[in-house]
Amino acid sequence: MADSKPLCSRDGDPMAAEALLRDVFGIIVDEVIRKGTSASEKVCEWKEPEELKQLLDLELRNQGEASEQILARCRAVIRYSVKTCHPRFFNQLFSGWDPHALAGRIVTESLNTSQYTYEIAPVFVLMEEEVLKKLRALVGWSSGDGVFCPGGSISNMYAVNLARYQRYPDCKQRGLRALPPLALFTSKECHYSIKKGAAFLGLGTDSVRIVKTDERGKMIPEDLERQIGLAEAEAAWGGSVLLSQTHRHLLDGIQRADSVAWNPHKLLTAGLQCSALLLRDTSNLLRRCHGSQASYLFQQDKFYDVALDTGDKVVQCGRRVDCLKLWLMWKAQGGQGLERRVDQAFALAWYLVEELKKREGFELVMEPEFVNVCFWFVPPSLRGRQKCPDYSERLAKVAPVLKERMVKAGSMMIGYQPHGTRGNFFRMVVANPALTRADMDFLLNELERLGQDL
Amino acid sequence: MADSKPLCSRDGDPMAAEALLRDVFGIIVDEVIRKGTSASEKVCEWKEPEELKQLLDLELRNQGEASEQILARCRAVIRYSVKTCHPRFFNQLFSGWDPHALAGRIVTESLNTSQYTYEIAPVFVLMEEEVLKKLRALVGWSSGDGVFCPGGSISNMYAVNLARYQRYPDCKQRGLRALPPLALFTSKECHYSIKKGAAFLGLGTDSVRIVKTDERGKMIPEDLERQIGLAEAEAAWGGSVLLSQTHRHLLDGIQRADSVAWNPHKLLTAGLQCSALLLRDTSNLLRRCHGSQASYLFQQDKFYDVALDTGDKVVQCGRRVDCLKLWLMWKAQGGQGLERRVDQAFALAWYLVEELKKREGFELVMEPEFVNVCFWFVPPSLRGRQKCPDYSERLAKVAPVLKERMVKAGSMMIGYQPHGTRGNFFRMVVANPALTRADMDFLLNELERLGQDL
Repeated sequence: MADSKPLCSRDGDPMAAEALLRDVFGIIVDEVIRKGTSASEKVCEWKEPEELKQLLDLELRNQGEASEQILARCRAVIRYSVKTCHPRFFNQLFSGWDPHALAGRIVTESLNTSQYTYEIAPVFVLMEEEVLKKLRALVGWSSGDGVFCPGGSISNMYAVNLARYQRYPDCKQRGLRALPPLALFTSKECHYSIKKGAAFLGLGTDSVRIVKTDERGKMIPEDLERQIGLAEAEAAWGGSVLLSQTHRHLLDGIQRADSVAWNPHKLLTAGLQCSALLLRDTSNLLRRCHGSQASYLFQQDKFYDVALDTGDKVVQCGRRVDCLKLWLMWKAQGGQGLERRVDQAFALAWYLVEELKKREGFELVMEPEFVNVCFWFVPPSLRGRQKCPDYSERLAKVAPVLKERMVKAGSMMIGYQPHGTRGNFFRMVVANPALTRADMDFLLNELERLGQDL
Repeated sequence: MADSKPLCSRDGDPMAAEALLRDVFGIIVDEVIRKGTSASEKVCEWKEPEELKQLLDLELRNQGEASEQILARCRAVIRYSVKTCHPRFFNQLFSGWDPHALAGRIVTESLNTSQYTYEIAPVFVLMEEEVLKKLRALVGWSSGDGVFCPGGSISNMYAVNLARYQRYPDCKQRGLRALPPLALFTSKECHYSIKKGAAFLGLGTDSVRIVKTDERGKMIPEDLERQIGLAEAEAAWGGSVLLSQTHRHLLDGIQRADSVAWNPHKLLTAGLQCSALLLRDTSNLLRRCHGSQASYLFQQDKFYDVALDTGDKVVQCGRRVDCLKLWLMWKAQGGQGLERRVDQAFALAWYLVEELKKREGFELVMEPEFVNVCFWFVPPSLRGRQKCPDYSERLAKVAPVLKERMVKAGSMMIGYQPHGTRGNFFRMVVANPALTRADMDFLLNELERLGQDL
């Protein structure tokens, strides 16, 4: 029954494989690490979808391609991708990069293992434990549990599922129908993952009760008390402020939460994804809530302590290693270096606010407390016309036009959004540790340049 | 208010960052790609957890470390990690590696973007569409939808959630309490993620109705018909057999399913994680079921077709790019090359079965149909004693002992498990494309060597 083809040679040529990887690495250094972080290069090279499809030749065919062609493909992928490490990429919370975190990510990819048992991930099981312990200590907990999740939204779902199980352990077996109606209290300004999670977990979006917020989006405690609810996880973006002695007061009280979702892939530039769910619980809640004791992975007759097999704490089966990038960066920077970055992000955000106030045509949505700076650019034709009836409507159309212009020029990227009754405003995120005051000045100058005819 | 510290220099030194990455890459080539795939090196270097903690010095401190120290840390992480690319790593479904997939993963890490909008992931939005189209075509669908998920278990949850929403759209808003009791029909041999998913989604594990299976673990249709249920996703491990003209008949009928979860990170060695959920649906079910229209990400007044922003199809917010590794490997190997790999895995599995039958002391659990080969090693002292009352009990203790011995020797890794009334047996997985007949012979010889005194 065995195939008659010769099966004595290894698949592919190891020397060729090594050469290919060296070439690809060289391309990454040139095109991403050097050019991609250079302010004199474009942050993106906009193409319309149909044109980009042509340029990329995406179709998967039956015939394989030679190395030269594959290298050309890598160059094209990089060329037309947005450079999120570029000093003018202000568009997302994960802008910027860290060489040690990237090193950790590349090592992780090359080792290609799953985080579920000590057997196949001895280093990473121990490392995750240590990293989570450190993050918990920063929250203010001397014990507890936790796990890295595929993103903050899933972390939030985990937290809701654990709260539900903690109060009603029957839920795991008997489902929501066996329970009284549940409500999920959250801030009016909560992340949209709360509603997504409520639907996914079978609670339904109607179960989400909105607690009123003040103008900064903070829950009004009296309103919450009126509604009384469960302790909700903090927003995952702000966690890294805990590293700063100067600014950690912004999260005063976080140690009273039962769970905290923290995304070091944002302000700490650990790289996507690095999202920790931290729990104060010491009763093995994660394992009790999610465990299913699959016998082929989590044998109980192993020759080591099976408590080290973390796989049954999660609802996934295989789970990526997300701790090494953060660990290696922390080892290299020290808590000190990371603190300096957080402080610098604050200092730059404040610098931006001061500069913005000096210029005509820029208007803050509100004074920032964190490193997000929300503002309108009011173009020349709208200045002084705040009282006109169509002012808001016209102002709301400015940001999309400027966004299109900056993207097509490739000069910078910054997000915009409407919010409640407020029309589109820019949402500047100061996260990239490579940013300087010159980049803040550039941002303002470039908006003025792009919007001078509006 | 701005900080008085100078903020004019970029964080870190770009030359030093580049040098560090080059050094780390050199270490990866030497330690993972060369030594890690060499049969003459150990597949793992076992350490007890306490000793390993000492060796790794995991603690995160306030003071940062110099490059030399960081490089030493990378070496240690690699040294004590299991080499899943090693030709004697048979322990998991994702054994082996592919240089093009690894290249794709390293490019993905360096570009560090999220798969949610065309704006920040133009290449990857189009590429994911193309890759999913290709996978759907192999299932036998000329249209449909899909998305890459963080692993097969989450893919399965997605499929269940979509089915629930399709039948009862009210569920999204009103939750499970507004619905009649639901049942989830699945095979007795289903992956444990089905039960985990039932609990997570609020259905409860009691809602999982087990359909009887034959001795191969296939659902008995008469039993299913008696219970009648929803079309369930196929097991994610076998999808890659669709690439083989010779073996795709094993999945005959798959095109009649509504959804298919397929993990190219297993048999195709695309690397963790690469897990596609494919849908036959053309009614935009994914977006209707999961969408929440977050205004700060999915603005409707963008200057391009917002249907290209795939982020609202998923329950995550940020989502990793999981398509490039598969796409690049496919471009390099062609459908042809991937087919050859699948066929070779079958041929080697059959070779192993034949060899195993020729030897005393090896007993198949059953004739394999796929590339998993389940068997017992019967040590000399138990041979011919099948009729003894304690035979099964003693045989079940053999695999854990052999596992401990092989891991501590570092010579190979292969999983074992009990199943129903069957005691522990070995579960050989032939997935690594670098395997040869010599590796199959080694496996049998090594078990004989390790178990000769038992």
